[in-house]
Amino acid sequence: MTDLVLHDDVLDENCYRVRLFLSLLGRQARMVAVNVVPGGAQDSPAFRAISPAGVLPVLRIAGVEVCGAGAALLALAHGTQTWLPRDPGGFAEVAHWLEFAGGPLAAATRARRIFLFGEPGDRDGLRRQGAAALRIMEDHLALRWLDGSPWFVGDGPTVADVALFPAFALSRDWEVGHEAFPALRRWMRRMLALPGFVTMPGIPDLGVV
Amino acid sequence: MTDLVLHDDVLDENCYRVRLFLSLLGRQARMVAVNVVPGGAQDSPAFRAISPAGVLPVLRIAGVEVCGAGAALLALAHGTQTWLPRDPGGFAEVAHWLEFAGGPLAAATRARRIFLFGEPGDRDGLRRQGAAALRIMEDHLALRWLDGSPWFVGDGPTVADVALFPAFALSRDWEVGHEAFPALRRWMRRMLALPGFVTMPGIPDLGVV
Repeated sequence: MTDLVLHDDVLDENCYRVRLFLSLLGRQARMVAVNVVPGGAQDSPAFRAISPAGVLPVLRIAGVEVCGAGAALLALAHGTQTWLPRDPGGFAEVAHWLEFAGGPLAAATRARRIFLFGEPGDRDGLRRQGAAALRIMEDHLALRWLDGSPWFVGDGPTVADVALFPAFALSRDWEVGHEAFPALRRWMRRMLALPGFVTMPGIPDLGVV
Repeated sequence: MTDLVLHDDVLDENCYRVRLFLSLLGRQARMVAVNVVPGGAQDSPAFRAISPAGVLPVLRIAGVEVCGAGAALLALAHGTQTWLPRDPGGFAEVAHWLEFAGGPLAAATRARRIFLFGEPGDRDGLRRQGAAALRIMEDHLALRWLDGSPWFVGDGPTVADVALFPAFALSRDWEVGHEAFPALRRWMRRMLALPGFVTMPGIPDLGVV
């Protein structure tokens, strides 16, 4: 028995963010497939009745339909012991990186859709912006490593790591390699080794899983 | 004495979101002016050292630099008694609307920049998307009104109302009038009457303040 429902497209990076977090938390959800490519189901009247702006994923939690990966991750993290720090500084840092995942790093998500699915958009510009966002993450993690932690916030994995992970893990889909990002590669190895980790097509396994 | 610092541009809608919330909370922040138009200061090395992706506003809170309005609002709401519900359903609803403010409603924010400041972009497309996002908010508030509440979540104002307010209040800047949005107009009246409300150029006063 579960009260969670996830409206999900298996090839969508934002949906994977939530599938990954559910699995790391050991929580089950009833899955409802939404055929975005090539079905265009995100624009159907039935889906728009649940998600008026056509945003995926949609997570039903505590009786509420929550639209978008950032909101779904935050709602799932709320009330956990370790994935969302309660101290003001830790909470603020996680909020910062969740916004980064939905803001500057969204260029990476859009670039992937252009390369993989032929969506319209500024292919080169978004690829460049996406790579610049990965560079900001790399610089942060390189400093964190000097502080003795491989994670984005604090001493263990938080929902921030979950939000940021897919864009880097899938960057080869939009033709940005991992060679120039040693700190992100180290972090990715830690992510792949977390209990409950699940992968998706396009993520290299690094021999970890 | 305050530990809060806000890097702020007075004409920026996202900065106003945070100024408004600070004022509603009765909290002081040391203000640091960032001259975006016409100065382009968001791209200066000094500002990029604080906000690597050039995102405004930046709020320093609990010793942490938080970039972006959504993250700053969430960090400020954390630990308040009423602005961020703690029950799972209320928390999930607020998370949903914060993501909406930074997602579909961001078209409104971008449309305003094109109309006011001549930024490049798809003027008509973004104006249309912004108006569609306001329509989703109108439909939600019309239903809420039938339930007896004028607020987006629960029985009183939350950080969701603060995040959503500026895009509607400033919509005339991008040539979308308020006539077609009676529920949003009613809600705006309530917002303007909140203790601590502060306005910004472009927001009609409705005779309330």
